[in-house]
This record gives sequence, structure tokens and C-alpha cells, in this order.
Amino acid sequence: MSDPQFFEKTPTESLVIGDLSEATVQLGALSTHETADLLERVSTRRAAVLFRLLGKDQAAAVFDALEPPIQADLITSLCEDEVGTLFESLDPDDRAKLVDEVPAAVATRLISGLSAEERSHTNAVLGYPAGTIGRRMSPHFVSVHPHDTAETALAKARALDDTAETVYTMLVTDTGRTLAGVVSLREVLMSDPSVPIADLMQEADSVRATDDAEAAALALVDRAHLLVPVTDSEHHVLGILTLDDAAQILRDEADEDAARAGGAEPLRRPYLSTSVLRIARSRVVWLLVLAVSGLLTVQVLEIFETTLEQAVVLAMFIPLLTGIGGNTGSQAASTVTRALAVGDVRTRDVGLVLLREVRVGLVLGVLMGALGFVLATLVYDMPTGVVIGLTIVCICAMAASVGGAMPLLAKAIKVDPAVFSTPFITTFCDATGLIIYFSIAKAVLGI
Amino acid sequence: MSDPQFFEKTPTESLVIGDLSEATVQLGALSTHETADLLERVSTRRAAVLFRLLGKDQAAAVFDALEPPIQADLITSLCEDEVGTLFESLDPDDRAKLVDEVPAAVATRLISGLSAEERSHTNAVLGYPAGTIGRRMSPHFVSVHPHDTAETALAKARALDDTAETVYTMLVTDTGRTLAGVVSLREVLMSDPSVPIADLMQEADSVRATDDAEAAALALVDRAHLLVPVTDSEHHVLGILTLDDAAQILRDEADEDAARAGGAEPLRRPYLSTSVLRIARSRVVWLLVLAVSGLLTVQVLEIFETTLEQAVVLAMFIPLLTGIGGNTGSQAASTVTRALAVGDVRTRDVGLVLLREVRVGLVLGVLMGALGFVLATLVYDMPTGVVIGLTIVCICAMAASVGGAMPLLAKAIKVDPAVFSTPFITTFCDATGLIIYFSIAKAVLGI
Repeated sequence: MSDPQFFEKTPTESLVIGDLSEATVQLGALSTHETADLLERVSTRRAAVLFRLLGKDQAAAVFDALEPPIQADLITSLCEDEVGTLFESLDPDDRAKLVDEVPAAVATRLISGLSAEERSHTNAVLGYPAGTIGRRMSPHFVSVHPHDTAETALAKARALDDTAETVYTMLVTDTGRTLAGVVSLREVLMSDPSVPIADLMQEADSVRATDDAEAAALALVDRAHLLVPVTDSEHHVLGILTLDDAAQILRDEADEDAARAGGAEPLRRPYLSTSVLRIARSRVVWLLVLAVSGLLTVQVLEIFETTLEQAVVLAMFIPLLTGIGGNTGSQAASTVTRALAVGDVRTRDVGLVLLREVRVGLVLGVLMGALGFVLATLVYDMPTGVVIGLTIVCICAMAASVGGAMPLLAKAIKVDPAVFSTPFITTFCDATGLIIYFSIAKAVLGI
Repeated sequence: MSDPQFFEKTPTESLVIGDLSEATVQLGALSTHETADLLERVSTRRAAVLFRLLGKDQAAAVFDALEPPIQADLITSLCEDEVGTLFESLDPDDRAKLVDEVPAAVATRLISGLSAEERSHTNAVLGYPAGTIGRRMSPHFVSVHPHDTAETALAKARALDDTAETVYTMLVTDTGRTLAGVVSLREVLMSDPSVPIADLMQEADSVRATDDAEAAALALVDRAHLLVPVTDSEHHVLGILTLDDAAQILRDEADEDAARAGGAEPLRRPYLSTSVLRIARSRVVWLLVLAVSGLLTVQVLEIFETTLEQAVVLAMFIPLLTGIGGNTGSQAASTVTRALAVGDVRTRDVGLVLLREVRVGLVLGVLMGALGFVLATLVYDMPTGVVIGLTIVCICAMAASVGGAMPLLAKAIKVDPAVFSTPFITTFCDATGLIIYFSIAKAVLGI
């Protein structure tokens, strides 16, 4: 949380002129997170050089703070021994994230190099599909029995080494690891030492390991608890999701939604350390899909070619009208996509949403259409004004409904709603808007 | 975290048929968060009716869990006594958020109704401008002295009532409330009781009360600590920012960015409980701004009117070409906006970003342009193919650079980068793209 200006003079500058000893001194003055930030801003090759300048303990801490794709880059440039030590030092959920970034052969070698206990913890996490909370849970938690006293629970907390992700919320489990509740260290501390945990514990919200990671993270952040227990279908405890991991999951999801709202796939790694070709690859598929849909607009215009030839003036308003449609649609889509993401709207609300968006679209359309009518009448003539005004009303109502319904439709067919947002809807509204425009023009102008 | 299907039969259905006693029974079966979720999905009037059915303790807990705009709605429909009790039960930072939602006269009355101590806490938070971390900090924290022993610190933690937001991380302060460090309850518990805190404490990251709230929240989530101390310019402790508040701040910011990326202002309240006119209001300003910029495209086309009359076929490609430009631009903008939001890119990286985006744009442009050339040549003729192909290359390079540079420019002039994203860039690229298109057409076709 230091001043960003701190990096005005960074070790990279020394590296450019090749002064490694100077770079080592400068790196030593940075905190773990400052070093990690630095490594995420430079090229892969340079990051590897800087990482080798770190002391052993600092290297482990910095490695832990790096994003998984950068960890994966480093792993390929370090010797096997170093890699093994670094991998062992990660939490099982962080190991799972790194494993997703490296080739399968490397992943197998990494996992087989772990101690038996850590290997089984890691495999437990890796057994759940990506996108589920099981894949992001931590198997290191503190559990107490309902018959334990507050004193015993406190002694358990004191006796722990630092593998447990948190001691501040303990899981209360019956025999057979069935979840009975949770108890906070605070309650334990403040109560009489002889009180049984059963009297102190609270009912626990819990999530299933197969639940969607984003939904579980959102619920935890909403409730502002420190953790939520992760169980199997028989309510046996498998692990915990901690608040900091939940916040990180939400951040990753926001990244993904932001990228898709702009019609690209998320980079999943820091921008400046990503190559030009990789950035292009993250965008090209959607660009092609959208361009192919864009060919629709050419076909629509071919249908109305004679109308266009008789009144070339109509062509002048094409970008303005498709622009208004696209913008109205993308406003509706982004509002509804976000409402879906935070749980304010569910797929079966589609009727409510449509009703709401048609009305919003009409309100906006009448306002904008009136303006369009006045302007076009003044600059051109009354019939042109009527065409433009009417078209805007219809396009706004259409675009708002399409924009509002699309994300719900996407969710219903299990596609990321953000995929159907702005660029997709813009393209769809372009073609539909042109049909509306030329149909109205033919009717009003009698051509 | 219960099954969403749980709400299939909710108390609202009973309310429709007017059976209040049945609704009371059903409400009693819901948890605090389920009740809050329900109140956020119904109209203001219905929410007020349901809220009155809650028991006194449940009412306070549910009120605390509601979003500030819904709290503000309820406040206007409750009697002064109830309002006073509910307001007093909130944390100072939550009070500040609610105060922002109600008219100034109501806010003054609410604050003057508080006890002297709570009033001073609340005013301390309200003294910082919106958007700073001071406005979101909690003044309730636990502090110990470096000379205290672990035993004393533990006794302090045990003696606390439940006003402190957390006891798990204690601030270590010298005389005069100067921040010396932080110590975790875990360290305190595990150490020998006679060890002084000075030997256990760690150096603390801290943020200034006047720092940007989003940046501070992001740094806290990145570091996965439970809290970060908030200080004044002389390093005196004023309060703390807790991890759950930080996660909430990031969620609100993601809401805002998502709305602006779609060219609307965030609703700042649950979608289904927001009236049609309020939704329209959140969109109309941007829609008008974009439409006025869209008039630029009409003017550009007027300049090229003779070209257009001589080759009406050129009009057919207008939506396709402006679409490709808009999509390329919005991809670049959303990537860079997000990279800025998460701190991967800073404003002074504008050169690096531009260089990167021009190259990405050229890669994409050459690929798409080649396709466009082949298709247009096959369907129309070779000169048309050359015009379309060349135009796509130029438009992609232009749009990617504009899309990449705009968010940085916005940040530099202290405007939210998300404002300049998709719709704004689409409109800008439309006009520029048309100039490129017709200039190339005139040169190649010789008209």
C-alpha cells in the first residue's frame, strides 16, 4: 500500500544497464508485495532474472504472492529442486490454480514431488471441476467437538502450527466429520472455560463442494463471515472457503465479465507481461463471430438497395440510428448482467425484466425520438423527421428488450451472460434496427 | 446460501391475497439474509409492510443487512422512534452510507438523535469526502501498547463487548495513538504470556484516511489481511478498514464499472426494486451525450454525399465496418480499463499501451482485412475488395489504439476510465472509421 510513485526508480532500470548488484540492493528494499507487483509488470525473461536475485525465504513469499500464470512462467525457468520447494510451500488451493496454468506433464511431476499428506490434500482439491467451490477450498481448518469445553477449544487453537488458514472461526463437527455448526474464537475467549462448545456454537451456513464458486463467494462476502464450511452431499466437512479467497474469486469473475462485456476473453494475467499475440488471440474469436453476424447488416441493406438508391439521404442516418440502438441495448444488457451476477435478478424473472425494459425503452425512445424529429425536420424536411423520430422510438424499445432479455437467456442455456452483452447485442440491434428503419422509411416516404 | 428455489413460495404471495398472519409465519422461517434478499426484490410499499411484520430483534438484524437505498426507503415509512433505534444499531460506516441516501434534513435529524459518543464517531467518518477510505472506515478497533504483555493483550480482548469490528488483529499504538504495528490474536494466544507485544508485533501496512477507497480495498484484498489501519497524515490511528468492507467496496466499484462500460450510471440499488423512471434516468444522460456525438457521423457522411451517390454500394458496408471498428475499440478499452482498475497498468504507461495496442490492432486488422478482401472481391469486384480490405486494416489499428489510450487519458484527467469505454469509443470510432472508409474509397475507385 505504498505510494505507486515508489516505482519511479525500479530495479528494472538497473537491469537495463546490466548492474545486477545494484538491482539486488534495490530489490532487498522492496516488500514482498512490491516485488510481486514488479515481477508482474516486466517481461517473462526479466522476471526470471529478478526472481533469481531474491533470497531463499523472500523468494518463497514472493512466489506465493504472484498470480498463477506468472508462477507458471517462472517454473519453466527454474531448476527442479527450487520448483519442488516453492510448490510445496503453496496452499493446496493455490497449487490447484498453478496446476491449471502448466502443461499436464509438468503438473504431474509437480504433484508427484509433494509429500504424501500434501499430495492427498492437493488431489482432493483437484478432484473438483474448475468453476466449483471445491476447486478453491482450503483443506486446512480447525475443528472441535460439540462436547469439548471452551477451555479445550482454546487449547486446540493455541497448539496449532501455522498450517490452518484461520483459527478465528472453528468448525464444530460430530463424529464422522458431520458439520454441526461454527464457533468463533471470540465467543470461546469470552465465555467461561467450562462451557461446552455445543452451548456456544451457531448454526453454520455451508456450501457444497460442487456449488458454483462465484455464487458461494458472493454469499460469503454478503454475509461478511470469515469463512464458510464446504461439505459433501452428506454434510461431511471437506474444507473451508475463506473470506480473502472469496474476495479474490469475485475479483477474477469481475475481470472475466469486464473482458466479455467488451467482447474479448479475459487475459487471466497482468496486461503488461502479456505478449501482443496472446492479446490478439484473446480477441480474435469474438471479433470474427461479430464480423460474421455483421454480414447480416450487408444483406439487410441489399434487400433495401432500391429504397437506398431512391433516397441516398437515408444512408446518412445509418450510423446514428444503429448507434442509438446499440447503446440502448448495451445499457440494458449491462444493467441486467450485473443484476444477475450479484443475485438481484434470477432467470425466471425474465417476464418482469422484459416488461420493465420495454417501458424504459419507450420512455427513452419517445424522448430521443422527439429530439430526432425536430432536428431532422429543421435540417431536412418533415417526412424525413417523421421517419427518424418513429424509427428511434421503435429501435429504443426493441433494443432495450433484447438487451434485457439476452443475459437471462444466456444464463438459462448455461452460457456466461457477459458473453451476450455489448458487442453481441450491438451487432444484433444493428441488423434489426436497419429493418425497422427502412420499413418505416418505405411506408412514410411511399418508396 | 440456501437454495434459490427456496423463494418459490415467498411471503409476498401471501401478501397479494392479504393474509398477513400467514406472511408473518413464513417470514419467521427465513434467516436474516433471506429476509433481506426478499425485501430487496419487492416494491418499496410492500417492503415496508413486510418489515413491520418482523419481531424487534429480527428487524434490527435485517435492517443492518439491507442495502443503504432500501434502508432509506424504509426509514421514510417508519415512525421516528423505530428509526432512531435502527440507526443507532448500525456501525458508523454503515450510518455514513445511509446518510448519503436520505435528504439532508432527515440526515441531520438522524445524527442528532444519536448518543453523544456514537454521534462523534459518525461525524468523524462523515468528515471525509465520498470516495475516500475515511468515509468507509470503522472507528471501532482494539488497540494495545507495545509494553503490554501477551497476557494483558489477551485480557483486553476478553474484556471487550461486541462493538469492536474484530478482535483478531489488534493495532499496536504508542502514546498519542501513533501506529507502531499490528499483532494478531493468534500470535498473542500462542506466545508465552509474559512476552511484551513489542516482540510479537509486525510492521503494519497502513492507508491514509484521504486515500482512494478502491485502491485501499484492492491492496487489502491482495494482501489477504483481516484489516488495514487507517491513519491521518501524522500516522495517528483513526480507524480500520476490515476485509469484508473492502470486498464490499470492490463489489460496488465493479457495479459502477459494469454500468459505465454499458454507457449507463449504476443504479446503486437492486434492479427489481427500482422504478422504470429511475432506470430511465440512469441511462438518459449518456444516451443523449452519445447521440449528440453520433450526429458527427451524419456530418461526415454529408461531406462524402457525392461519393455515396456515385457508388451506393458503399453504403451497404457502413454498419459492418463501423461495427468492426467499434468492437475492436471496445475490446481494447475493456482490457485496459480493467488493467487500470486492478493496478496492472498506470497512467504513465500510456506509451507502452499504445505501442502494444497498435500492434494488436494491426495483427487483427490484417487477418480480418484479408477475409474482407476475399469476400468482397468474390461477391462484388476486386476494387471493392481492395477498399474493404484496406479499410478494415486501418480501422482496426486506429480503433485498438484509441480504445487503449482513452481509459488512460480519462484517468489522467481524473474521470472514471469506465466512462470512456465501449459506447463512447464506439461512437468515436464510427465517425473516424467513416472518414477512413470514404477517403480510401475515393482514392481506390477514383471518384
